[in-house]
Amino acid sequence: MTDMKLVFLGTSAAIPTLQRGLSSVAIVRGNEILIFDAGEGMQTRFIESKIGMNKKMKIFITHMHGDHCVGLLGLLQTLSLMGRNEPIEIFGEPTIAEFLNQNIRIINFKLSYDVIIHKISGEGIVISEKDYKITSCFADHSKLAYSFCLEEFDRPGIFHLDAVKRLGIPEGKIYSDLQHGKDITFKGEKISSKGITGPPRPGRKIGISGDTRPTLKLTNFFKNSDVLIFEATFLHKDIEKAKESFHSTAFEAALLAKNSNIKKLILTHFSARYRDIAPIESEARKIFENVYIANDLDVFIITYTK
Amino acid sequence: MTDMKLVFLGTSAAIPTLQRGLSSVAIVRGNEILIFDAGEGMQTRFIESKIGMNKKMKIFITHMHGDHCVGLLGLLQTLSLMGRNEPIEIFGEPTIAEFLNQNIRIINFKLSYDVIIHKISGEGIVISEKDYKITSCFADHSKLAYSFCLEEFDRPGIFHLDAVKRLGIPEGKIYSDLQHGKDITFKGEKISSKGITGPPRPGRKIGISGDTRPTLKLTNFFKNSDVLIFEATFLHKDIEKAKESFHSTAFEAALLAKNSNIKKLILTHFSARYRDIAPIESEARKIFENVYIANDLDVFIITYTK
Repeated sequence: MTDMKLVFLGTSAAIPTLQRGLSSVAIVRGNEILIFDAGEGMQTRFIESKIGMNKKMKIFITHMHGDHCVGLLGLLQTLSLMGRNEPIEIFGEPTIAEFLNQNIRIINFKLSYDVIIHKISGEGIVISEKDYKITSCFADHSKLAYSFCLEEFDRPGIFHLDAVKRLGIPEGKIYSDLQHGKDITFKGEKISSKGITGPPRPGRKIGISGDTRPTLKLTNFFKNSDVLIFEATFLHKDIEKAKESFHSTAFEAALLAKNSNIKKLILTHFSARYRDIAPIESEARKIFENVYIANDLDVFIITYTK
Repeated sequence: MTDMKLVFLGTSAAIPTLQRGLSSVAIVRGNEILIFDAGEGMQTRFIESKIGMNKKMKIFITHMHGDHCVGLLGLLQTLSLMGRNEPIEIFGEPTIAEFLNQNIRIINFKLSYDVIIHKISGEGIVISEKDYKITSCFADHSKLAYSFCLEEFDRPGIFHLDAVKRLGIPEGKIYSDLQHGKDITFKGEKISSKGITGPPRPGRKIGISGDTRPTLKLTNFFKNSDVLIFEATFLHKDIEKAKESFHSTAFEAALLAKNSNIKKLILTHFSARYRDIAPIESEARKIFENVYIANDLDVFIITYTK
């Protein structure tokens, strides 16, 4: 397993600005791209980011507001024009299927690859792969909306090849047994797994809020994340606007991050009313030290502790 | 009547580039904005251009390819978020109604103003207003597509108020008669309209090609335009690609402009494959001298000869 890259492809809320496109963030994990939300125009940032046109790709839509899903249409078309042939899996609440199927029919898209649509029907595991899973939790927004977590499975500890070689143990299934916690007997001698293998390496956990008010449910859902990407549409002086529109303030996002015991908070989805984003960052930092502001095309590397 | 402004809101074909968004051009004419096509992301250029959020607005969609119509969704939503209350009229082939109605239903848009959809059912007058009309002509593209002309009606000549005053003619309907070509009798004396009123002032004609191969039909449709906005997706060395995809080359656009006896040609809708657009301009200029390349946010002023 290697480092992950978070690439922000749009960081404005509702209305794009000259500096910020509409919501989208990609997690590049090995040979796979996981995209969360696809606001209008995100394809331009996607092209600019050069993260790869033909890689394995899954797209998760937090909710069916235009500024989070309309960019899917252009992205799908452009990937096709660029000759993609790998299928794309798209996950969202059931309306996503209607949105894609109707538009593909009406605009008469011709795509060079398959689009597989998965309807998310509630909370829990959205997809489970060999070494990670994506889970969903209800957000608290003005329409049905999900937050997501990417959770890598723990991996066995580092296998000390030099140690087994020193003991003269020949290569084979026995190596795997030792790495996976099984003690073995070799030439009458008991060999303990712990002596050969380091402690299990925990998987990383990345949370993505989508659009939401802060809730206790989400505080638990995001618990102990390595990175939490949370919306901070408003400054806390505009809390009434945040409540009305079911969004969060920077203060609220930071408080949730603190209560969730997460390691790093990245704020995104800023209202176009704020020309200067610096006060959003400083408001959050008063509560939670390790906070960053996402700008379009910002890349955050999430290292993997070996 | 005053000058018109052409404002380019997107000049790339099919795939956006870092410099060029997808197709859209606005004609600002007095207090009204006429928009032709609305490719994804054009709302960002629209906001940037500051041509006005609450002005009278009509939008004409040449054809229902995603890169010409998907931007409608974001534009409508943003205008609503910005508090527009004036209705918007949208014109396009019948599928436009399905596209808008389905998306408004599925994404559950809440708009602060009325959207009036007009289905264009063939060639001829699309809309006739007090002092101009918009006409349509079939283009030659890979799906049903229209080209449009904006044609201002001729206005009566300049009325020489000083001359009628000198003759002692009192204000009233008689002034309007004289300006509109009627000779009158005043105190037994015959007063000729021509002596009081200058020659009729011709309206301007602006042509918009949308996506098309060049055709004789369009050469006639655009005849004598003051300005022709024509697509030049390809260089002529890529003529085979132009034929395959039902687009035009710069050479072909210039030849059509010449044969149409138009005054000024503006090329747009460039394939993302060309990093440098200068060869498109020089290829066209060999055939037609008064040619310009449109870049995003370029403004062309179309003066009104008094």
